[in-house]
Amino acid sequence: MTSSYIDLRSDTVTKPDAEMRKAMADAEVGDDVLDHDPTMAALEEEVAHTLGFPAALWVPSGSMGNLIALMLHLRRGDQFLAPEHSHVLGSELGTAAWLAQGMPVALPHDGGPGRPSPETVLKAAGSPGPYFTLNTTLLCLENTHNFAGGAVMNPAEWAALVEAARSRGLKIHLDGARLWNAAAALDVSPTALTSGADTVQVCLSKGLGAPVGSILAASPELITEARRIRKMLGGGVRQGGVLAAAGIVALRSQARLSDDHDNAQRLASGLRERGWAVDEPATNIVLAATADPSATVAQLAAVDVGAVTVAGKVRFVTHRDVSTADIDEVLSRVTF
Amino acid sequence: MTSSYIDLRSDTVTKPDAEMRKAMADAEVGDDVLDHDPTMAALEEEVAHTLGFPAALWVPSGSMGNLIALMLHLRRGDQFLAPEHSHVLGSELGTAAWLAQGMPVALPHDGGPGRPSPETVLKAAGSPGPYFTLNTTLLCLENTHNFAGGAVMNPAEWAALVEAARSRGLKIHLDGARLWNAAAALDVSPTALTSGADTVQVCLSKGLGAPVGSILAASPELITEARRIRKMLGGGVRQGGVLAAAGIVALRSQARLSDDHDNAQRLASGLRERGWAVDEPATNIVLAATADPSATVAQLAAVDVGAVTVAGKVRFVTHRDVSTADIDEVLSRVTF
Amino acid sequence: MTSSYIDLRSDTVTKPDAEMRKAMADAEVGDDVLDHDPTMAALEEEVAHTLGFPAALWVPSGSMGNLIALMLHLRRGDQFLAPEHSHVLGSELGTAAWLAQGMPVALPHDGGPGRPSPETVLKAAGSPGPYFTLNTTLLCLENTHNFAGGAVMNPAEWAALVEAARSRGLKIHLDGARLWNAAAALDVSPTALTSGADTVQVCLSKGLGAPVGSILAASPELITEARRIRKMLGGGVRQGGVLAAAGIVALRSQARLSDDHDNAQRLASGLRERGWAVDEPATNIVLAATADPSATVAQLAAVDVGAVTVAGKVRFVTHRDVSTADIDEVLSRVTF
Amino acid sequence: MTSSYIDLRSDTVTKPDAEMRKAMADAEVGDDVLDHDPTMAALEEEVAHTLGFPAALWVPSGSMGNLIALMLHLRRGDQFLAPEHSHVLGSELGTAAWLAQGMPVALPHDGGPGRPSPETVLKAAGSPGPYFTLNTTLLCLENTHNFAGGAVMNPAEWAALVEAARSRGLKIHLDGARLWNAAAALDVSPTALTSGADTVQVCLSKGLGAPVGSILAASPELITEARRIRKMLGGGVRQGGVLAAAGIVALRSQARLSDDHDNAQRLASGLRERGWAVDEPATNIVLAATADPSATVAQLAAVDVGAVTVAGKVRFVTHRDVSTADIDEVLSRVTF
Repeated sequence: MTSSYIDLRSDTVTKPDAEMRKAMADAEVGDDVLDHDPTMAALEEEVAHTLGFPAALWVPSGSMGNLIALMLHLRRGDQFLAPEHSHVLGSELGTAAWLAQGMPVALPHDGGPGRPSPETVLKAAGSPGPYFTLNTTLLCLENTHNFAGGAVMNPAEWAALVEAARSRGLKIHLDGARLWNAAAALDVSPTALTSGADTVQVCLSKGLGAPVGSILAASPELITEARRIRKMLGGGVRQGGVLAAAGIVALRSQARLSDDHDNAQRLASGLRERGWAVDEPATNIVLAATADPSATVAQLAAVDVGAVTVAGKVRFVTHRDVSTADIDEVLSRVTF
Repeated sequence: MTSSYIDLRSDTVTKPDAEMRKAMADAEVGDDVLDHDPTMAALEEEVAHTLGFPAALWVPSGSMGNLIALMLHLRRGDQFLAPEHSHVLGSELGTAAWLAQGMPVALPHDGGPGRPSPETVLKAAGSPGPYFTLNTTLLCLENTHNFAGGAVMNPAEWAALVEAARSRGLKIHLDGARLWNAAAALDVSPTALTSGADTVQVCLSKGLGAPVGSILAASPELITEARRIRKMLGGGVRQGGVLAAAGIVALRSQARLSDDHDNAQRLASGLRERGWAVDEPATNIVLAATADPSATVAQLAAVDVGAVTVAGKVRFVTHRDVSTADIDEVLSRVTF
Repeated sequence: MTSSYIDLRSDTVTKPDAEMRKAMADAEVGDDVLDHDPTMAALEEEVAHTLGFPAALWVPSGSMGNLIALMLHLRRGDQFLAPEHSHVLGSELGTAAWLAQGMPVALPHDGGPGRPSPETVLKAAGSPGPYFTLNTTLLCLENTHNFAGGAVMNPAEWAALVEAARSRGLKIHLDGARLWNAAAALDVSPTALTSGADTVQVCLSKGLGAPVGSILAASPELITEARRIRKMLGGGVRQGGVLAAAGIVALRSQARLSDDHDNAQRLASGLRERGWAVDEPATNIVLAATADPSATVAQLAAVDVGAVTVAGKVRFVTHRDVSTADIDEVLSRVTF
Repeated sequence: MTSSYIDLRSDTVTKPDAEMRKAMADAEVGDDVLDHDPTMAALEEEVAHTLGFPAALWVPSGSMGNLIALMLHLRRGDQFLAPEHSHVLGSELGTAAWLAQGMPVALPHDGGPGRPSPETVLKAAGSPGPYFTLNTTLLCLENTHNFAGGAVMNPAEWAALVEAARSRGLKIHLDGARLWNAAAALDVSPTALTSGADTVQVCLSKGLGAPVGSILAASPELITEARRIRKMLGGGVRQGGVLAAAGIVALRSQARLSDDHDNAQRLASGLRERGWAVDEPATNIVLAATADPSATVAQLAAVDVGAVTVAGKVRFVTHRDVSTADIDEVLSRVTF
């Protein structure tokens, strides 16, 4: 019997399905740099509405969406706050600092997994010393929080952080690369998790399965400026409607994310039964602590199971291209 | 009788044809950020080969390709040379300066349309004054040169400029957004127009008609670093194979660019017969001098013909979605 | 009776004495940008020797010295480590991020006041996740550590951190704005506190009392590049010998720093006797925790005593322009 | 007979005289970063008044003054205009581009030596093409213009350029490193040459002879922001009053600049008599065209005369430390 590779490295590996491919092939397109491609416009409008914002902009990646948001909000001499191990801090090659010009302050997760407490935000927004000081102008949050194991922030927790930030005059950016997972896990509308933010970034290419693309939502004024910044960064594309068409299909699949969450639970339980130290998964990410995570990842690769190390642990991510049977197969291969 | 819109604003408006759409729908894909998508890899390899380079990288736009090239070559305190009205100088929102950190020096077109003479390059590469000075490290050329009316640089002209730049220790970047047009007009292999460059950027989304994407070609070492910079800028995409598949089809259509050039000639002749002052087109771009170019563009729009103002003239661009009959129709509508 | 103002806000308020003023008036000078001013050269050579380095460069401020060091060591995509509340993190208006292009990671003071443990350095220098990651390339330390209350790092503690950083391939920059105080408190040569660093910045204008200037020490190669960066930032000056002459005099006054340390002890003891919660001063900085530090600073100002709030406490700094009698006078005024 | 060195390389080599040295020794000082040094404040107020501005800021160098001005006026995506061979273009190591984030456009000297015509400004301020374009927001002028041979712009010429720039909404920065020479040559008040500018930079350390320092004049709002930027760049100094005192003395010596201009005329005449091709000097700069300027500078050095090459010519600069007798001595040594 031949073992086939089961890829739990990330939900970014999801491939477009037949419906998305047909939509791409049939898409009405225009020159989105010159005119605004009609399918792009339709996707942006739909996502804006879903997130409760008046405007939105397609970008080629979540990294670009976050970067544009930081460039919109930060000026040299500004400081911004983000939970420790946020994607904008450690996984975007320092663009928050060298390109968006912000001095980051990493906040502890003292408000719960993946988030600071409102008190910590209030304290961190204060001034650090005499004379000229950095202006703290922005709070970045991440929901779900990837390196905290897909941790979810609920509407009340979010609202309390928004209120703390607002009371200190901070802008708020939400990195919602996996916001769909948070909404599915909580069974709430995405708008309950975005209300009060100045900018929100969501990915179409992770759990939802679109091949390429993320969306930045904001006010019309910020989106106009974001479109200009996107052009600067080289992220404006021509007949992008072919990708947007897949994105529109992908949006319809939010409901099935709970299957991924169930599979994550199944994987966590199974690994625990085998004696692994596994964090309780909140969504589609399973973090396991092993003596030597890199060695464990190599052992898994040897039995054709894909995983990565993140934050000193082994990370598995469930997604639409992995079935419950695949999870059971993974568990059957884990004999170490 | 209804008049239909004939769009000569740019060849960026070209739409993917049925073959490209089928290729997108059928594309084998992977996660290009994580693993290298197989169709992306095939496209990059084919373009690298076509340009005579050992390696290449897909990017979402020509602007990003040029930007990454400049970031590879420039450090703060460096000066670079480019012909006046180059795309990198006036049409990329200053990223050559503020992001790639280069101080630009615009060279006159004293070597012919769209290019400096080798003597001008030699002189400009010299030191401007005493004490600490800017290091001149890079020559950027553009073939065809857009704002010089699609002007073509032939292999001998290119080689002379390469030699001048090399003799002063300069690196060379070629903005080949429309290199395919130059090769078609000269009936030479693209490699005759890229030999000696350190980096070359070519677009798949203009005359070739792919929906999205450009390619940066360079050495394997530079491409490794370029891949990292692309990630920084947010230009890494996941299942990009859907776009690459269209790019592979587009590459096959180089031969038909001469039809666009013929149509440009036809348009230029027709306009001249109507008394317009029209530059002789070298490729698919027609520049016409009118008393008030913005007013002329508005007049054209009123008869459903798309054009833009560029460099103080009216610009028409022919492309695959405009037929010879369309050109004749344009001429019939131009009664002013 | 009139009360005179006693300024304990910072040791930066020290004024040049008669000997320094005479030295300035008599200084031999040249054009330091063009030729290297002879008195500048003499000062740089003397400080380089004192710190155990082969070369050094005068800069107008400690902030510029730190900034140039970071610009020497960091490239976009690099991460650097520094203890929480370091001057480079919170008191230099974000230049480490937006200008030197580094993504900062603030380390806890788990190795003692003002410094991380070697284990924390080793762990932080590791990679944060899969795919492309930030390169951690630099450790910045600060001795004495200002916001940790003038905390001192001794030679063994320094050497252990240097060793940890070196084992991970990190460069090391020492912000020694008050290194002279550390050396005086430990009664060691400054070289015992700089050995193994790539760059060291020391100030002449704080405890030593020179009117203007700091020195960056490094290898000759780095100093050549630093001189170029200084020119970029506008920090090259012409007949700087007038300032360097004062700096040479100031260097002779290292021994008297222990008087400032004694005065800090005296102030701390006196405040404690009045019931204040005062950290044990290690050098010339006294931190006191009060219910409302800003209010306390205002109360002190009302009795003509200068102090500031730093890191949520009240900070007093002793220096050459404050005598033991002044300290007693301060204590007599503190009746709240 | 021994020949002594006569230094005509630049007026930056001028040394402080006895009166300046005494003023430095006697200066009342404070901590200018913390409080505003009183002598600094007096100097800034006097220069502001002299230039017709409400506020001003001391900076360590003209380069920093220009850099801060550009940082005040430019944002990423902005374009600025400056005459060819301006100091901000070629002699400040590219900071206008990489640090102040401006895309420069070099204008021809078609309005006269060292300056564009108003028509050229009007044309250059227009938009370069379709879609998103660079915003042209700033005109930088230089009076006298160094590399144009100390060329002077008179009040009417200045006013016409100001009017052209204003009509296009441009801000105006004047690099007045040698504005004092222009005012002396024209026998007008400096205010006649600064009226309408947003920012003006003047040097105290060139013809006026102060050892260190330049002044940036602007509105109070801009100066507040400039003070913050100066701190960022590390240009804030502590007891700067020692330098300011020399600057106040230097300001009194504006009248004697006409002696330098007379000496420049004398040098130019004498060189012409010897058959040299010499531009007519407008102020204190003499440019001579020779077959090989670098060789000529070496020949001059061999007879102990200092000169440099600038813009492809040999440049001599007269100043307060060079007498008429020195000029005659130079001419006697020039036998080649």
